[in-house]
Amino acid sequence: MCSDVPVMPTSVPAFSRLGLRAQPPTIARLMNLALENPTLLSLAAGFTDNATLPVAAVQAAVASLAGTPGEPEYLQYGTNRGRPGLRKLLAERLCGIEAGLDAKAVNDGFFITNGSQQALYLAMQVLCEPGDIVLVDRPSYFVYLEMLAGLGVRALSLPVDFGGRIDGVALDTLLAALVARGEGSRIKAVYFVSYFSNPSARSLDEVEKTAIATSLSKAGLIVPVVEDAAYRELYFREAPTAPSVLTLPAWRRFPRLYLSTLTKPFASGLKIGYGTCTDADWCARILHVKGHHDFGSANFNQAVFETVLANGGLDAQLAVIRPAYERKMRALHDALVAEGLRELGWTWAVPGGGLYLWLTGPVGIDTGMTSGFCRACIEAGVLYVPGDLCFGDDAPRHYARLSFGVLGEKDLAEAARRFVSVARRFA
Amino acid sequence: MCSDVPVMPTSVPAFSRLGLRAQPPTIARLMNLALENPTLLSLAAGFTDNATLPVAAVQAAVASLAGTPGEPEYLQYGTNRGRPGLRKLLAERLCGIEAGLDAKAVNDGFFITNGSQQALYLAMQVLCEPGDIVLVDRPSYFVYLEMLAGLGVRALSLPVDFGGRIDGVALDTLLAALVARGEGSRIKAVYFVSYFSNPSARSLDEVEKTAIATSLSKAGLIVPVVEDAAYRELYFREAPTAPSVLTLPAWRRFPRLYLSTLTKPFASGLKIGYGTCTDADWCARILHVKGHHDFGSANFNQAVFETVLANGGLDAQLAVIRPAYERKMRALHDALVAEGLRELGWTWAVPGGGLYLWLTGPVGIDTGMTSGFCRACIEAGVLYVPGDLCFGDDAPRHYARLSFGVLGEKDLAEAARRFVSVARRFA
Repeated sequence: MCSDVPVMPTSVPAFSRLGLRAQPPTIARLMNLALENPTLLSLAAGFTDNATLPVAAVQAAVASLAGTPGEPEYLQYGTNRGRPGLRKLLAERLCGIEAGLDAKAVNDGFFITNGSQQALYLAMQVLCEPGDIVLVDRPSYFVYLEMLAGLGVRALSLPVDFGGRIDGVALDTLLAALVARGEGSRIKAVYFVSYFSNPSARSLDEVEKTAIATSLSKAGLIVPVVEDAAYRELYFREAPTAPSVLTLPAWRRFPRLYLSTLTKPFASGLKIGYGTCTDADWCARILHVKGHHDFGSANFNQAVFETVLANGGLDAQLAVIRPAYERKMRALHDALVAEGLRELGWTWAVPGGGLYLWLTGPVGIDTGMTSGFCRACIEAGVLYVPGDLCFGDDAPRHYARLSFGVLGEKDLAEAARRFVSVARRFA
Repeated sequence: MCSDVPVMPTSVPAFSRLGLRAQPPTIARLMNLALENPTLLSLAAGFTDNATLPVAAVQAAVASLAGTPGEPEYLQYGTNRGRPGLRKLLAERLCGIEAGLDAKAVNDGFFITNGSQQALYLAMQVLCEPGDIVLVDRPSYFVYLEMLAGLGVRALSLPVDFGGRIDGVALDTLLAALVARGEGSRIKAVYFVSYFSNPSARSLDEVEKTAIATSLSKAGLIVPVVEDAAYRELYFREAPTAPSVLTLPAWRRFPRLYLSTLTKPFASGLKIGYGTCTDADWCARILHVKGHHDFGSANFNQAVFETVLANGGLDAQLAVIRPAYERKMRALHDALVAEGLRELGWTWAVPGGGLYLWLTGPVGIDTGMTSGFCRACIEAGVLYVPGDLCFGDDAPRHYARLSFGVLGEKDLAEAARRFVSVARRFA
């Protein structure tokens, strides 16, 4: 605009329904809160550990690419589906960590995205109309839930028992009720974070995963399933043993999309996610729409990671970060215990991997974004993710997700101290 | 899937209307054709020149980032909107190449995307419902047109005269007819590639750009405008002089989105696009939906490019590629002339920038994807973009887009020879 011309009223765009539904993502609000308060210690961000980021591995990979004879195709556009070499290495790796996979099928259905978030978006875009239903784990990944809301899709929780385990009998009841009131055909997909879940840090075991498929089959609802395995390789000591939906017999008849990411186990700055889809038509439509989104993720990052992977750099990085995250988890956990949070009625499990502690507050506490408790935490200089954001429906308000991903051990202890000081005031 | 278990029929997903509309993007089909025929010389790909890709600049930037004291935040998640430092540098650069811009407004509305394609997608997603109308230049960018088709949006051409210039009188007539039949409110945006257009290599001059705004204003259609300036800095000798919609007085009342990219002038492998939007609400909704797509483009690439930009590396790269592309344009142009294409009734203008020659074939020729001419070209070992893909409506079938971006001068000459040999057979 010309700065020397008087400002005239401009017209207001007429937005689409999707445009009108769009709300500021919580993740952006949390980031902004942190940026505006430099002294705030964030247990909210799902960021990864800065101290262990693979600086040398990335620099070496770029130098190796630069020194490779021939044309520097790594600085050129790649393909819509992603680099063939990277896809092949990642598909092989997946077959290496899970027995019984059909290597050709995994490779045929493989694609690369801008983080696994884009894959989630594309998968939902090609399946769901506004008003449709997706069944989600309870609790579930809040960025995914907000994305569903943005698409106008209803998220219904897979019922769980008091221990947080999938309750197959309650699921049967829920599905029967949905079918009875004519909503069976609105159920377009099932979604869960199966390993060291964001936010609960729980893994679904084989019995639970099978129970979901069994209930759906009984109700005649053979709908697409999305298994989000973002944290599968981010265990501390023991690899999780439950097979994925790709090999579990109960899921065999279902269209299955298995998603994971290199952001968590390597570097979030490279923003590479990946998926493999058993249904050729679903996969094709996802890729067609990706062609419209961006016709291919950044080829450079993929080439860097392909080089890292070929050189064993992912395993080297995992060997560094697994004990580092376990130490950080311990630092946060121990500080919460030492400050007396348990005595204030808060409980949580000690996770075997992932980036989160999932805290259950005492009866009556309200941890919501607009609650006095949340405000008091921000004033005390500590940020967390209010647990009510992490539920598809019927959200309780007494949970909190604390991430030990980004802060160092000393800051984690201080953040814990601040959090418990507020919990004490609200006890 | 278990390889030792008999294959059972799987269920078919129920797709959304968007999922059902999804078609394989032409760009992916052209890429696959090229991959399947290694001897094929592609004048179709909008790829950039491999020989001049900035290998050293990228490697130096990564080394510089690795050597910077402090935490390696460049390997960490960035923000949804994009790196503040990169946004600032790009906004300043834009203000440097166009007089009269309000630096604060440009900066306030600035954001980074996965190539400018993602910005186009987001901008349309928040504005358009299926059945809505977008006015597009004639010819227009075919990947954008296919994206509109994917969203179910109708593209109507801005009328042009025989010289390809915007015809304001015909536009008045078109808009009056749309309003008269009650479709005025379905017109949600206007889109054009304003500098060295893909595919026509034309630039819109100030008179033409003003004419579009004037016609819209007269018809009472103050709708959002998207100016795609992807090739603005890719001139050979003379910078284009027409101001953008950001400063042209006739556009002042319109919500304006100005888009460009670093893929063409620097490296397509980094896949960084950017935009600045004058309408705070439109911009916010674009960013909200970007939060759902991916909550931020890859931070690493942005950091690499920020370093390059701060060191003057973009201007250094432009100083290399401007004469290189002019030589390549000349190589293709001269070979087409020398082989006698003009004598066969084909015409084209010599462009002052960009990556394309836009050929008008003789009356009666059909260059379409399924035409005998196109098949004969593929058999002869040369690929082009059929011109009919580049029209929003009423597509003529006698145009061809030839790109001199990716091939070297010798291959360009050979590709021209093959193309003219086919044109001779169809004369």
